[in-house]
Amino acid sequence: MALENASSPSLSPPTLFAHLITIASPSTIKHAISNTAIKIKNIALDDPRRVTHSLKVALAITLVSMVYYLQPIYNGIGDAGMWAILTVVVVFEYTVGATLSKGMNRGFATLLAGALGVGAEAFGSLFGPTIKPIVLGFLVFFLVGAGTFSRFIPSIKKKYDYGVLIFILTFSLVAVSGYRVDKIIQLAHERLSTIIVGGLTCIIISICVFPVWAGEDLHKNMVKNLEKLASFLEGFGNEYYRVSDGDKSFLTAYRSVLDSKATEESLANFAWWEIGHGKFRFRHPWKQYLKIGVYTRQCAYHIEALSGYLHAKDEIPSEFQKIIQEPCIKMSSETGKALKELANSMNLMVHPLSSSIHIENCKKAVDDLNTTYKVSMVEDQWDILENISVIAATSILVDIIKCVEQISEAIEELSKQAHFKKPKDKTSNEAGKPHILHRGAVKPVGVENEQELVTVTVSSGDEVLHEART
Amino acid sequence: MALENASSPSLSPPTLFAHLITIASPSTIKHAISNTAIKIKNIALDDPRRVTHSLKVALAITLVSMVYYLQPIYNGIGDAGMWAILTVVVVFEYTVGATLSKGMNRGFATLLAGALGVGAEAFGSLFGPTIKPIVLGFLVFFLVGAGTFSRFIPSIKKKYDYGVLIFILTFSLVAVSGYRVDKIIQLAHERLSTIIVGGLTCIIISICVFPVWAGEDLHKNMVKNLEKLASFLEGFGNEYYRVSDGDKSFLTAYRSVLDSKATEESLANFAWWEIGHGKFRFRHPWKQYLKIGVYTRQCAYHIEALSGYLHAKDEIPSEFQKIIQEPCIKMSSETGKALKELANSMNLMVHPLSSSIHIENCKKAVDDLNTTYKVSMVEDQWDILENISVIAATSILVDIIKCVEQISEAIEELSKQAHFKKPKDKTSNEAGKPHILHRGAVKPVGVENEQELVTVTVSSGDEVLHEART
Repeated sequence: MALENASSPSLSPPTLFAHLITIASPSTIKHAISNTAIKIKNIALDDPRRVTHSLKVALAITLVSMVYYLQPIYNGIGDAGMWAILTVVVVFEYTVGATLSKGMNRGFATLLAGALGVGAEAFGSLFGPTIKPIVLGFLVFFLVGAGTFSRFIPSIKKKYDYGVLIFILTFSLVAVSGYRVDKIIQLAHERLSTIIVGGLTCIIISICVFPVWAGEDLHKNMVKNLEKLASFLEGFGNEYYRVSDGDKSFLTAYRSVLDSKATEESLANFAWWEIGHGKFRFRHPWKQYLKIGVYTRQCAYHIEALSGYLHAKDEIPSEFQKIIQEPCIKMSSETGKALKELANSMNLMVHPLSSSIHIENCKKAVDDLNTTYKVSMVEDQWDILENISVIAATSILVDIIKCVEQISEAIEELSKQAHFKKPKDKTSNEAGKPHILHRGAVKPVGVENEQELVTVTVSSGDEVLHEART
Repeated sequence: MALENASSPSLSPPTLFAHLITIASPSTIKHAISNTAIKIKNIALDDPRRVTHSLKVALAITLVSMVYYLQPIYNGIGDAGMWAILTVVVVFEYTVGATLSKGMNRGFATLLAGALGVGAEAFGSLFGPTIKPIVLGFLVFFLVGAGTFSRFIPSIKKKYDYGVLIFILTFSLVAVSGYRVDKIIQLAHERLSTIIVGGLTCIIISICVFPVWAGEDLHKNMVKNLEKLASFLEGFGNEYYRVSDGDKSFLTAYRSVLDSKATEESLANFAWWEIGHGKFRFRHPWKQYLKIGVYTRQCAYHIEALSGYLHAKDEIPSEFQKIIQEPCIKMSSETGKALKELANSMNLMVHPLSSSIHIENCKKAVDDLNTTYKVSMVEDQWDILENISVIAATSILVDIIKCVEQISEAIEELSKQAHFKKPKDKTSNEAGKPHILHRGAVKPVGVENEQELVTVTVSSGDEVLHEART
């Protein structure tokens, strides 16, 4: 912050001087320190796993360095210990998947590049000491160039970017090391073993001590994103008709979904490396999450367009708007409920069932809306001009219903691929296409953070079809 | 690709076997190789700077390793040479800004951590050989923990993430090195000098040999994004009324804008580190680009909602739709022209002037539309129900005009901050708020790639106000 201020070109020297005096006054310093402390505290409280992660990394490095420091074989820390510390520092990432990805990339790339490097050394030696540097120079130039270019290939960039980097590094080091082959092999053995020690330390601590799984994070992220959209849509109707008060944070929460692509893709990439954990098997269909993500964002874009009609109007609803109030509120709240249901079933990893009821209800509300439009148009002569924004808002709501149907299909597909628990449905014949039941009553009880107690009760006639507790 | 297939859990052993045989057949191999070759060629053709970058990295590493290899002081490559190669491999990034950022982070972090490490060693020695490892262990644990946590602080993560990583690495290495202080200082001197050699090699090659400037890329990206939105809007009207044929790629090109946030932010971050280059001074207002980016995406979200109304209708335009054809096509094409103008003025770094004419024209078209609505509603009795989507599309178009106004204001602000050339306007009194001129004729001639020849001619009466050629 201070750095940015100081480098601002608009401060003339006297202003800058006054500025520095202001900065240096004791009260300003005190203020700045307490501000920073509050910021740091918030970052820690925002996600306490950040503190745990910091302690884990500190533990891993202290462990590795102490082992090498105390080992009586080395007089002080040797080359080998250095490589172990270096490995821990660069390999230990926030999530298990990222750590595994980096560790395995590093290990295999070192092995491959080491072998190729020894080969290059031996090949170069065939030409005698004068030409050898030239031959090696060409080999290094060619392989480094090819390696660097390969990092632009999307499939390599996605999963093996770090491996290629380490390959380039190790090959260059080994090829021009100037050692005889037997000495290289001894060195390589030593270095590889320390890399393995460092890498394994990271991986073990990362998995065993409060693990942060990229897959679990991705899963929770998707659920949260769906819930954010659901909250907006559930609240939109009341907000549009000014019949609600209180906390309005749900009106802006959806915005983070708009930019969720990068996070989702990197989490899905890391999740690919992870072993089975918790509810997730090894090779959980993480790719399908990306598809759900695409449709979720699609929905968010429409919500963004819809939200414009909310802020545009501070006045009381028009007569025309009031006439379509019931189907309008119904459409938005039922879409919200459908999304909340989908989020819930994804969270509990059960087959989405009752969401289809809400989608059907949405469609009924659309029919109602159309009927209302038809009737009111014949009875009263409404001025289109005054009601363009109302008509547009309802039209976007209809588009949102289509988006929610797409999300629903994608989650349905996920539930097949990931073998979600099927509800013990006694009446419906096809699990994939549930009957439209009389009514679906969903009571989420205290949906907060990890520990959820959700009772999903879908009653067909008098029969309770499904009850899930986690 | 092959790896992903092989690891797919759905392949049963016999299928897998058949699959492998298919893979191994000569024709398949030939096919796969030619496919890969085509892919690689496309990646290279897509942005030839990728090839240049690969050659630059290869050159830097070959240079550094050859210098150390051929140096007669070292018998074979020493520790020092190793650090130079390592520095080049990890510091040399695609853009100048990223290379500068990594190089400077690495240099300063090594310096600071080295000094602190020596201090820690000296401090530890005060306690005698038995307690020293414990004291050092605590120091390492504390500083590594604090350093790792600081990487979660957004302002540090943005610009100094790599520096903190190197700080952690160097401090751990030096603190537990077990050497006496004088030996450490000698080692540190050697290591720092090799890091400086490696870093400078990267920075010099990166800047002098076909430089890729993050700032320039950001600038061009923004221009391209604006042009993509402009092309969609210019073409939308004709597409909506099915009066166009030919290339329809403009209908989907805007989609890349939706997910442009991550790229823009990282480019702006790297651009912050760059020295002045080409049209850009040191400390060009890159932050303002991010603001323009926000509004550009806002506009893209609305376009995404609008595009739904395009694909929904394959049938011929309705009667009602035809009545509003003229203002509708005008609205969309004038918005497109305004955006294209803004993109052009940003590209040429001249004050945006003629875009306001198009925005005024848009507003006139909106008035025309409203008049048409009013008249047609009185004369004919249109069924709203049949025309909801038409009304909604026009309403979204009006929202897009608002977005374009925001973009225009943000670019206006940028043109002030970055001191864009002002057109030599003889008639308008206020440069900020130009008069609405008779007509603005803009003829982009062959707007392709870098080498553009654009003639911007804004005529007021018979006078040519401004002509810019780059």
